[in-house]
Amino acid sequence: MDEFSLIQHFFSAANLDSDNKDVLLGIGDDTAIIKAAQDEELLFTIDTLISGVHFPEDTDPVAIGHKSLAVNLSDIAAMGGRARWFTLALSLPDVDANWLQAFSNGLLSLAKQFDVSLVGGDTTRGPLSITISVIGTAPEGTAIRRSGARTGDSIFVTGKPGMAALGLAAIKGSLALPGTAQATFQQKLDYPQPRLLEGDFLRNYASSMIDISDGLAADLGHILAASHCGAVINTDSLTCWQTGLSTLPDSRLLDAALYGGDDYELLFSVPAGMSFSLEQDWPGSFSPLSRIGEVTEDTGIMMRDNSGKLMKITARGYNHFHD
Amino acid sequence: MDEFSLIQHFFSAANLDSDNKDVLLGIGDDTAIIKAAQDEELLFTIDTLISGVHFPEDTDPVAIGHKSLAVNLSDIAAMGGRARWFTLALSLPDVDANWLQAFSNGLLSLAKQFDVSLVGGDTTRGPLSITISVIGTAPEGTAIRRSGARTGDSIFVTGKPGMAALGLAAIKGSLALPGTAQATFQQKLDYPQPRLLEGDFLRNYASSMIDISDGLAADLGHILAASHCGAVINTDSLTCWQTGLSTLPDSRLLDAALYGGDDYELLFSVPAGMSFSLEQDWPGSFSPLSRIGEVTEDTGIMMRDNSGKLMKITARGYNHFHD
Repeated sequence: MDEFSLIQHFFSAANLDSDNKDVLLGIGDDTAIIKAAQDEELLFTIDTLISGVHFPEDTDPVAIGHKSLAVNLSDIAAMGGRARWFTLALSLPDVDANWLQAFSNGLLSLAKQFDVSLVGGDTTRGPLSITISVIGTAPEGTAIRRSGARTGDSIFVTGKPGMAALGLAAIKGSLALPGTAQATFQQKLDYPQPRLLEGDFLRNYASSMIDISDGLAADLGHILAASHCGAVINTDSLTCWQTGLSTLPDSRLLDAALYGGDDYELLFSVPAGMSFSLEQDWPGSFSPLSRIGEVTEDTGIMMRDNSGKLMKITARGYNHFHD
Repeated sequence: MDEFSLIQHFFSAANLDSDNKDVLLGIGDDTAIIKAAQDEELLFTIDTLISGVHFPEDTDPVAIGHKSLAVNLSDIAAMGGRARWFTLALSLPDVDANWLQAFSNGLLSLAKQFDVSLVGGDTTRGPLSITISVIGTAPEGTAIRRSGARTGDSIFVTGKPGMAALGLAAIKGSLALPGTAQATFQQKLDYPQPRLLEGDFLRNYASSMIDISDGLAADLGHILAASHCGAVINTDSLTCWQTGLSTLPDSRLLDAALYGGDDYELLFSVPAGMSFSLEQDWPGSFSPLSRIGEVTEDTGIMMRDNSGKLMKITARGYNHFHD
């Protein structure tokens, strides 16, 4: 099977299934032709996953397909946008129909879930890597940037940061988890759910937002740097969810919550006056909401433990070029 | 230098230099925010270059930067569009400041030439590969597809297809070229010029269009398949430019013209009644124009030699998954 048949076979069904009238021309020409509405701004992003760097080499190809798109959709979610169209650049060491079928199943079922259309691609022979570029949209002037946090804002996070990192540690054999936790945490690592519904909802609340890919402390650091302020985080708010992991030392749990990457949950600030109504209005079907701290005038990130003691932490996190 | 500083240092200057008011937010957030005009459609494409597959490993990084963007801009040109914004996913085995400086020089000077803005990126550690995704625009309903060729249309090509393939053969040592030709042909291979001005001009003439990346015969095959027709090509029109290469057999020259990839010239059909005015109006500053044949009702591609004899050719070309 040659390159063109391969792309056609596994990916063009996505195109045919879509009834998106905004896709004027999909896969199969030099470019796709698409049409945004007049009152929309475009959100444009790109992300790569490389085998052995972003996922273990023996990862289920269904998970690889899912995650490749999920990490990109997560960037759109972090702006409060709606994901619309994407292109896929796939580098493969060889043509394996079973692998491709599983990969495209993982990719396209997530695409279908959020009604985002695959409109073009490029397939080459090379080391396994997947690059996806997504265009999202948001009503004019409403996208949420990293730079809008203000002193006094409350800091919230969705979900339970640290689960993906603990799942990865368990896979690598550096951590023993109880059986049920192992499956749950690996699911979190392999099938991150982009928080698009939550992000859309938060356009009415958040003053700044980011998705947690590098780790909570590092990503909070990005918000604070862009907003020229600091933060205090309550230790308890990050470890209280980790019941059932009592065999692990607290420091290990906190480390995962602060420095573990790959969670793809949303981290955001909300003006103090709106925090209570956010908590009241938060839909029960959404990823759970936790208020974890507040924005301060002094730069840097401080941790406050349950005795009220403060300590400074560094914004380290996962970084491809740190050794 | 960490990943973030690296991106900032080499690529964010592009952002600051740009006075494009349509870029509301550039590099440095989860996504860029951009705004297209109301009456524009979006053209969306992605392409990857991998070291050792798309360029020899010792290629000058200036050329790698140039070509990575050029092949993508060429796709926008092939639709008759204007290139506007792009994202860059860069996978690097290590951080080499000299290499990055040269790469970004090549990339950004081409971006500047065509006023296209780098608005986001992702950098990871891995085998050297570059994926770029571009958004272009075209006035509503004017983008030129592959599917519009009609029986009787004239077929044209810009430039001199085959030069890049001969340049590559010379680098690989399988072909001896005269000294000046060697330099010219390698320049053509390493620094392809996206034919954006030509593509824009052709919106008023072309019924179908594609850029030559896989080889003239293969890319003509894509137009013909999408348009459900065939073509006759005049051999002479493809070899007459190759004066000064008289040491090479004609069959080698024709082979390069038909099957050599990487030319990034435009191949297009024009209604017969407009062909003469196109030739009259073609600006002298553009890549030279050649009328090479015509569209036929019978499918397949036939060659017509200077004695009028016809022979069928296959649409083979460069394909990453052909062995």
